[in-house]
Amino acid sequence: MKSPIDFYFDFVSPYAYIASEWVEALAARHARTVRWHAVLLGATFAAAELKSPLAHPLKREHMLRDIQRSARFEGVPFAMPDQLLASSLLAARVFWWLEDSAGERAAAAWGRAGLRARFTRGVALDDPAALKTLAADSGLDADAAEAAWGDARWKVRLKRANDDAIAAGVFGTPFFVVDGEPFWGNDRKPQIEQWLAQGPF
Amino acid sequence: MKSPIDFYFDFVSPYAYIASEWVEALAARHARTVRWHAVLLGATFAAAELKSPLAHPLKREHMLRDIQRSARFEGVPFAMPDQLLASSLLAARVFWWLEDSAGERAAAAWGRAGLRARFTRGVALDDPAALKTLAADSGLDADAAEAAWGDARWKVRLKRANDDAIAAGVFGTPFFVVDGEPFWGNDRKPQIEQWLAQGPF
Repeated sequence: MKSPIDFYFDFVSPYAYIASEWVEALAARHARTVRWHAVLLGATFAAAELKSPLAHPLKREHMLRDIQRSARFEGVPFAMPDQLLASSLLAARVFWWLEDSAGERAAAAWGRAGLRARFTRGVALDDPAALKTLAADSGLDADAAEAAWGDARWKVRLKRANDDAIAAGVFGTPFFVVDGEPFWGNDRKPQIEQWLAQGPF
Repeated sequence: MKSPIDFYFDFVSPYAYIASEWVEALAARHARTVRWHAVLLGATFAAAELKSPLAHPLKREHMLRDIQRSARFEGVPFAMPDQLLASSLLAARVFWWLEDSAGERAAAAWGRAGLRARFTRGVALDDPAALKTLAADSGLDADAAEAAWGDARWKVRLKRANDDAIAAGVFGTPFFVVDGEPFWGNDRKPQIEQWLAQGPF
């Protein structure tokens, strides 16, 4: 059995959203699975002494254009949310609650649902009411999800996930680790594909 | 006649070096030419309030690995220079001297020669003696090149090139503008290729 692809994402990362729409199919074509990791860019940026790319003049304007063009390039539906800088804390805690209580596939499904909700329908994942509705629409027990995101246990679990990601070298998302090899960015898809098809290069 | 591809590079940018090895062939396949622009990342980083990516923990380690892997992915010879953060001031002034006195193609040839010298043979472009040798090896009048890089006229010309680049939205290199559309990064090659082949998307 080949090792899974580790896929690190933040629910507020637009490039992670684009990658989330191709990573499962790419992995499946090469007999791999995907292990999703919800992290907070705030934590990885702090470790790398980075600000959000959107905080930089020139880079911000380019990025807003590039995100939308990159989504079209990959054929992924995309609508720019009103607030690009929002908190994904609650959604990420729900992810780790699901990971530990319902398993990897349930957590990954929540990851996909959250990213899609945010980047195709503008759902505000930092709004508790909107998040409960999304949980219910995703087939979860919305009250249990709410209890989870307020529970110190999943706060600690997310903190550990951030620490583990930083220890693995993650400073931004999407970030992939394939057979120990790190790849950063939605734009590393061709390199990941070559690695999966032909091995190390 | 289709418009040329504007290609912004700094002689010390490893990703610009990789791109410099494919941009001419890509343009030619689509009946385009390339207009090279030597700029200083120090100036564009300042405008965008950025530090070098190499100044950031985690990102630095990833980048050193990614540069070498990206060169292999493109089939481009690459040897990591001893000093990744070096000054390209003199080489860039020579570029604009050539651009204005010998024309675009002479300047582009110097751009290619300088990037190759730095990233395949470790030539220190900030060492005047090494730079004179490179100028002579490139068929230039080495004394005239030395006079040019010390001449206030080309200092001012390079300053204007940096200002023009920043006005065009350039914050890092390689940076491309195709039909008014900006693309940042060696990794935007597939998007540029699609644009050239099929038009705007």
